[in-house]
Amino acid sequence: MRHTQGLQRAARQEARRWATVYRGRKRSYGEVLDRVGRFAAGLRGMGAQPGDRIALIAMNSDRYYEAYYAILWAGCIAVPGNTRWAPAEHAYALRDSEPKLLLVDRTFAALGAQLAADFALPVILLDDSAPGDDLPSEDQLIEANPPMADAGGGGTDLVGIFYTGGTTGWPKGVMLTHASMIANFQSSALVRPYPSPCIFLHSPPMFHLADATVVFGLTPLAPTHVIVPGFDPAGVVAAIQQERVNALVLVPTMLNMMDLHLREHPADLSGVESVTYGASAISEAALKRAMQNFPRARFAQAYGQTELSPVATVLEPRFHSEEGAAAGLLRSAGRAIPNVELRIVDDAMNEVALGEVGEVVVRSAGAMLGYWKKPDLTAQTIVDGWLRTGDAGYLDEAGFLFLVDRVKDMIVSGGENVYSAEVENALYQHPAVAECAVIGVPDPKWGERVHAIVRLRAGTEADDADFTRHCEALIAGYKRPRSYEFRVEPLPLSGAGKILKTELRRPHWPSGERHIN
Amino acid sequence: MRHTQGLQRAARQEARRWATVYRGRKRSYGEVLDRVGRFAAGLRGMGAQPGDRIALIAMNSDRYYEAYYAILWAGCIAVPGNTRWAPAEHAYALRDSEPKLLLVDRTFAALGAQLAADFALPVILLDDSAPGDDLPSEDQLIEANPPMADAGGGGTDLVGIFYTGGTTGWPKGVMLTHASMIANFQSSALVRPYPSPCIFLHSPPMFHLADATVVFGLTPLAPTHVIVPGFDPAGVVAAIQQERVNALVLVPTMLNMMDLHLREHPADLSGVESVTYGASAISEAALKRAMQNFPRARFAQAYGQTELSPVATVLEPRFHSEEGAAAGLLRSAGRAIPNVELRIVDDAMNEVALGEVGEVVVRSAGAMLGYWKKPDLTAQTIVDGWLRTGDAGYLDEAGFLFLVDRVKDMIVSGGENVYSAEVENALYQHPAVAECAVIGVPDPKWGERVHAIVRLRAGTEADDADFTRHCEALIAGYKRPRSYEFRVEPLPLSGAGKILKTELRRPHWPSGERHIN
Repeated sequence: MRHTQGLQRAARQEARRWATVYRGRKRSYGEVLDRVGRFAAGLRGMGAQPGDRIALIAMNSDRYYEAYYAILWAGCIAVPGNTRWAPAEHAYALRDSEPKLLLVDRTFAALGAQLAADFALPVILLDDSAPGDDLPSEDQLIEANPPMADAGGGGTDLVGIFYTGGTTGWPKGVMLTHASMIANFQSSALVRPYPSPCIFLHSPPMFHLADATVVFGLTPLAPTHVIVPGFDPAGVVAAIQQERVNALVLVPTMLNMMDLHLREHPADLSGVESVTYGASAISEAALKRAMQNFPRARFAQAYGQTELSPVATVLEPRFHSEEGAAAGLLRSAGRAIPNVELRIVDDAMNEVALGEVGEVVVRSAGAMLGYWKKPDLTAQTIVDGWLRTGDAGYLDEAGFLFLVDRVKDMIVSGGENVYSAEVENALYQHPAVAECAVIGVPDPKWGERVHAIVRLRAGTEADDADFTRHCEALIAGYKRPRSYEFRVEPLPLSGAGKILKTELRRPHWPSGERHIN
Repeated sequence: MRHTQGLQRAARQEARRWATVYRGRKRSYGEVLDRVGRFAAGLRGMGAQPGDRIALIAMNSDRYYEAYYAILWAGCIAVPGNTRWAPAEHAYALRDSEPKLLLVDRTFAALGAQLAADFALPVILLDDSAPGDDLPSEDQLIEANPPMADAGGGGTDLVGIFYTGGTTGWPKGVMLTHASMIANFQSSALVRPYPSPCIFLHSPPMFHLADATVVFGLTPLAPTHVIVPGFDPAGVVAAIQQERVNALVLVPTMLNMMDLHLREHPADLSGVESVTYGASAISEAALKRAMQNFPRARFAQAYGQTELSPVATVLEPRFHSEEGAAAGLLRSAGRAIPNVELRIVDDAMNEVALGEVGEVVVRSAGAMLGYWKKPDLTAQTIVDGWLRTGDAGYLDEAGFLFLVDRVKDMIVSGGENVYSAEVENALYQHPAVAECAVIGVPDPKWGERVHAIVRLRAGTEADDADFTRHCEALIAGYKRPRSYEFRVEPLPLSGAGKILKTELRRPHWPSGERHIN
């Protein structure tokens, strides 16, 4: 089992089908296979040896796709950088992963030059060359090298080091293998098949595993990968209509932005057959609007994390129905996919009773090999074969998972556990709330105090007292925010589209880091 | 990755759905899970320890399904016997696999008693007890034992020893693992998804891997397994209509028998959404009639062998079309499924040119661990990671595989290779041919002579001279049969529905075994 064989299968079976479409540039599988073999030879020529890491920092493009495969084809390991990182975070990831080469696109060329100087690292421009460029480019390497034979590993060899977390401290490098990624993709596809043939839109960041799993998992089936530089609603609508996209993955924030855009600029998106969403909670109302916006799509929710390659549970399309909604299932993250086992445990890793909240732990062929260079953290995270997700939730009797919070987002106030998601859900029911986040802040009396950060809808007004009254009817006293903070700007988001609570917490905690219970 | 977890998933998520339906008896997943845990405890109580083999000889039933899972749940290894074997073959398999227990149904109770005496082996009746029975029964074990905890292995632990071959010498025990079976099932499901929810009809023999792969692969998705004792057209039609079967697997012989039956007894089979066929060649005409008989079904052909867990290639539903037929694809066995690599090689295992005939070799996560107790044969069969299928074929430029023959069914006559399938295809185009098989027989002049065994359609007449004239227009002189043998009885079939050429050859070869080139 190896990813490069999947590309070869696609090129063998569908040589003339478009493999990648990017800003009107279309390349067939035959062409991409040829470019990948040459690009890989070029990477070798620049000094990369089998087992070496190769870092890449770039916006989405067809070249990102080629870079992923060329790195593997050369027998190397991909280290995709988060495009939202600060330079210090990029520097940390390079120190940690010790790559032999760095690939950057024009957006990150200046950063690349700086990092190249600091780390004495050869840099390759993920583009064609233009007058004035002083970096070797992907296209130069492709022109200069004949294709090399596939030197890609497989099985338990590393595919990449995918950095994650960063909600506290530095990001951690998650080591994923060919076997873990293929097993996980295939298991999730059993309960959420892709259209065949598939025309898939990559608008979330390709550095993120949620997209990379589709790059590598779907390619053996020879889909057309339609790639846009990043998510923006107008670009997504245009790509769907022009390229007849029939499948995509979006996070809830993106579905909401699509909805706002479509209200102003109605568009026919009925060509889309499959929409998968995940990575954070979605309100039932927002989901229903999304389903109206993609009227012929089968919706599925996926929950997981990078450490799981990434899927643990799927809420299948058939539950996205009136019956599913009536049964409350649209609030669920779905059920364990085949060949993934899921338990809810207490701090001592003992299974709790059905319906009780605890930490979600998972046993899966998709589980990471471990955190790069962090054996202690790996041992804390994978205990007796069970991977601790850090997420809190409960299971119902039919195996539906209901997530309540990140364990580390749980607030301990006066000895009581408060799940921020529950408080946020209450606040979201107030008509004036556009966006909100609930965090714990230091409090001399309670240890932590429930604190809410709220952005109001344009043209509305509301204050602490209004929200206190609103919450009284909905949640217990100890869960209600004791203080509020109002913002005009949107709340900060992570690359995956989640609200960055670390940033919201930072000003409140003197050390810059909150104690994690 | 382990099969017992799949049953647990189904029972957890769909406890009240029917797991098995057999002659009107319906059992839910909750009930089957409970019975399996108890049955497993009973097997342990009878002396089976983890890693022990447990043999079973039975017609299809819901109890066969329970037995498969109970054996794995107890941590043991299944050894399903071929129901068409002669007693000597059963005895061989028991000597070879050294099981600790033997399970038999009433059909095989007498054989079981004999084998029990010969091998000093405890026997369990795969049934309820009746007055006069002197064997312990499945239901007695279930009543007498509380459910034990799942002791099932996983990963590279053995699931079963599946006996195969027997076209020469004794059958060989193919060792398959949880990992090989799950990887293969998931890969094939990517290109040929099952309906969801699935109501699957088991009419081919459950001892055969072609059915066992569905038992274990599909169960995690909680299908309803509708089981009939064996294939007969009227029973299949009744089961489809009564239980709303929407998916099934049949071999070409069975599709033909269905067609003959349906001409006499038309029936609405439009509830069937998915038909997979394979295991031997099918004529285009027969396939088209089958597609008319199942008017709403998506057809797929699967090619493989037990040693591959079992699928290597699939001809996807979309090629079962007018365009596919016009392009000649209905004569193809399809293309390598994802994560399976396929090559055509010469005797020295060197890849031959595109379009040239050679032996099909496969590299796959589904490849067997090896032949039980046959390290030499295993080493001859898996060479540098490539499994030699013994089948001859060629690939076209788009990766479609065209099988011409079993390598060992190839006839070498006067130094020319003759592929029997090609000759048979020519004979089948004669309107008087109901069934035929072409074999090599000893010839003083040519080494081997092309010999045809023909059964004529009722009410038709034809002789050697007619067929010689018929073949002249279709195939080269050296390929034409030089002698004919006419039969009234149907030709002998293997358990998998293939014509047993070994039996047809036997009278012609003095040693009882033909020299294999």
